[in-house]
Amino acid sequence: MAKVYVVGANGRMGKLICELVCETDGLELAGKFDVDNIEQLDEVAPAADLVIDFSQPAALSHVVAFVRRTGAALVCGTTGLSQDDLAQIQSLGSQARVVWSSNYSIGVAVLRRLSVEAAHALKDWDIEIVETHHKMKLDAPSGTAKTIAEQVGDEVGRPILAHSMRGGTVAGTHEVHFFGTDEEITFTHRATSRRIFVAGAVECGKRLLTVEPGFYTFDDLMF
Amino acid sequence: MAKVYVVGANGRMGKLICELVCETDGLELAGKFDVDNIEQLDEVAPAADLVIDFSQPAALSHVVAFVRRTGAALVCGTTGLSQDDLAQIQSLGSQARVVWSSNYSIGVAVLRRLSVEAAHALKDWDIEIVETHHKMKLDAPSGTAKTIAEQVGDEVGRPILAHSMRGGTVAGTHEVHFFGTDEEITFTHRATSRRIFVAGAVECGKRLLTVEPGFYTFDDLMF
Amino acid sequence: MAKVYVVGANGRMGKLICELVCETDGLELAGKFDVDNIEQLDEVAPAADLVIDFSQPAALSHVVAFVRRTGAALVCGTTGLSQDDLAQIQSLGSQARVVWSSNYSIGVAVLRRLSVEAAHALKDWDIEIVETHHKMKLDAPSGTAKTIAEQVGDEVGRPILAHSMRGGTVAGTHEVHFFGTDEEITFTHRATSRRIFVAGAVECGKRLLTVEPGFYTFDDLMF
Amino acid sequence: MAKVYVVGANGRMGKLICELVCETDGLELAGKFDVDNIEQLDEVAPAADLVIDFSQPAALSHVVAFVRRTGAALVCGTTGLSQDDLAQIQSLGSQARVVWSSNYSIGVAVLRRLSVEAAHALKDWDIEIVETHHKMKLDAPSGTAKTIAEQVGDEVGRPILAHSMRGGTVAGTHEVHFFGTDEEITFTHRATSRRIFVAGAVECGKRLLTVEPGFYTFDDLMF
Repeated sequence: MAKVYVVGANGRMGKLICELVCETDGLELAGKFDVDNIEQLDEVAPAADLVIDFSQPAALSHVVAFVRRTGAALVCGTTGLSQDDLAQIQSLGSQARVVWSSNYSIGVAVLRRLSVEAAHALKDWDIEIVETHHKMKLDAPSGTAKTIAEQVGDEVGRPILAHSMRGGTVAGTHEVHFFGTDEEITFTHRATSRRIFVAGAVECGKRLLTVEPGFYTFDDLMF
Repeated sequence: MAKVYVVGANGRMGKLICELVCETDGLELAGKFDVDNIEQLDEVAPAADLVIDFSQPAALSHVVAFVRRTGAALVCGTTGLSQDDLAQIQSLGSQARVVWSSNYSIGVAVLRRLSVEAAHALKDWDIEIVETHHKMKLDAPSGTAKTIAEQVGDEVGRPILAHSMRGGTVAGTHEVHFFGTDEEITFTHRATSRRIFVAGAVECGKRLLTVEPGFYTFDDLMF
Repeated sequence: MAKVYVVGANGRMGKLICELVCETDGLELAGKFDVDNIEQLDEVAPAADLVIDFSQPAALSHVVAFVRRTGAALVCGTTGLSQDDLAQIQSLGSQARVVWSSNYSIGVAVLRRLSVEAAHALKDWDIEIVETHHKMKLDAPSGTAKTIAEQVGDEVGRPILAHSMRGGTVAGTHEVHFFGTDEEITFTHRATSRRIFVAGAVECGKRLLTVEPGFYTFDDLMF
Repeated sequence: MAKVYVVGANGRMGKLICELVCETDGLELAGKFDVDNIEQLDEVAPAADLVIDFSQPAALSHVVAFVRRTGAALVCGTTGLSQDDLAQIQSLGSQARVVWSSNYSIGVAVLRRLSVEAAHALKDWDIEIVETHHKMKLDAPSGTAKTIAEQVGDEVGRPILAHSMRGGTVAGTHEVHFFGTDEEITFTHRATSRRIFVAGAVECGKRLLTVEPGFYTFDDLMF
């Protein structure tokens, strides 16, 4: 039975993760952390096998310190991180099993990979992204939109614009638009519940426990 | 046979208008004006029955002066105008028959009217607009998107955000999104040729010739 | 405290209705009925103030008999009913307060009403409907698609085709497409949870308790 | 200067092909054939370098006989063909350079290839297709929809349903829908003019003139 800590446990995603960890064979929810008790991770908390972190950038230093101290595996889904933050997570890979992704949905992964492939075939077409989320979402564009914009932008050698809509209870919609001469292609992904992100994150956690230390991407673990 | 002057005659829309005026019974293309010869409108040009102006804001003062001097009817579809420009056009209505619209498509008119009605029924839903046009379009958001945003915004008592995509050869797509709790509604209009705008503008011109002097909206003339 | 019976209580919608009735001030869940115990409605069941029926056509005769016997108010959301079934429900209006609708969502109601208005303005455009639901949905096209097709068809004087997609866990998407010359308009409604139908049905039940006997439509009660 | 015969020259596509052949360096429009003079292909017509056939299945035997007699290269875009018809075209590859495709658009090719890739990654998701074309289109589903349904169906090992809408002047829209648990992906291709099909067909014709005899697919020649 692997002991799991959830960081950001009181957030929308964190609550779902706690539920799912409890329902998953082989995993045991051993600790819930959030803004109010995050300092306990620093020195007090006993070792765990796996940390699943869907919190705020402000919590990251505590999570990183805990992984360094205990060697726990880390599934990180926090978005809005700086380049420095991301570099810090990647460097953890030298001593622990770590995965970071802005999105843990298999459908979103397909959207991202095939958008890059389409961009390769349609290099001279114009490309823009639109993402839509519920009103409570703090960052914009979404982490997923940023990642797709980056990877597609690298493929075609120019920056890709991403537009953000915020409204209602939308769990998450991403559209990648390709505009050519007299034709256009759109790839759309719609999530109707946040469980799709949680399911992929918990699955990654399980797979992480079976691999060598290192920094992994979602695709490394899932495809 | 009504004599028609087309202003902005070398632009994308202007060329289509010239074509359509030539094909329309009862209308005669009597003059083509653009940046290079717009000054001729000022004093030289003889009277015409109708001016159709799809040009740049910079040409407006010449068009207004011509209408004041000759009393010609005016169909104006120039976008990117200031509040002062618009006030000037409206004031022409005291002596001539004038219509200004940011969009002369019947489909766009339906989109606009029903978006306002939907907003009335769904006052507490979140509302945003996305518009897409070809890369050559200079202004953003489009005149149509601005008009819908204003009218819907007046209905719900708060400003409506409009996002603009630019790519390929898209003739014009407008989406009005309404986001509620666990449900959403989207109204989409797609134009696949600019002829839909021209057809409505020329039709307005014909109808304008049969009414009393005054400032008219597209809906006044068409519904 | 109004006593409520739920018929079809073990179905997807029925379960949500039971939950919501329990959460709603002024309502008390007094009985749950389904295929296995529907006969109890016939003579055994004591009077209730309100019956909410989201079951199968086969259960209808029992529900109708109960309303005739006790005068309870009836909110019926069963789809796949024959013309005779519907006539039977309407005739109940002579002695009880009754509402039947194929769909109890405010968003769907807006979609339906505005589709009819658009059809009125665009009479010579081609019109088709596409609806998408999860794989478990038995009837096709959906009751909502049928209702929209009928009302729009009456407006334009010709039958409207409805296409049905079935897949995944889609809670319900309806698109009404209008195709003109070089332009098209699409109205889309997406539900992301079945609670939107349940919420409207329970709200109708509350309003029904305050009105005179008669047969009501959803629009009668809600707009 | 390569001599080109166009078969189906009076059809919508045929007219565009004739225009484009005339505008293309290195190609010369040497003959136009259609229902009324198709028999002339049989024995009378002198040799040509290239035949571009966008006609009806009924014309195919004449086209095939001409290619057998003269060894001309063949670009065939006729849809609605039987399995026997297609086998006949393929067998021409033993003596001539031949390409057949239901669709000569680069965008449609990307849609088709990436739909198959997505199906590979999402094997247990439900998949359906919707295609929309103008009212004049005779066959349904479109050749493109059939091809995508076949290739995606082969990938997932079950038949794929395709729905057809017909209305207005739609040049061609294809949507491939993937439905999973709480998420869905849609790939959409929109054509706004038939020139996208013609451009690809004429380009294929040019490339065909530079390769060895054989039966080629659109992808063989273009990617």
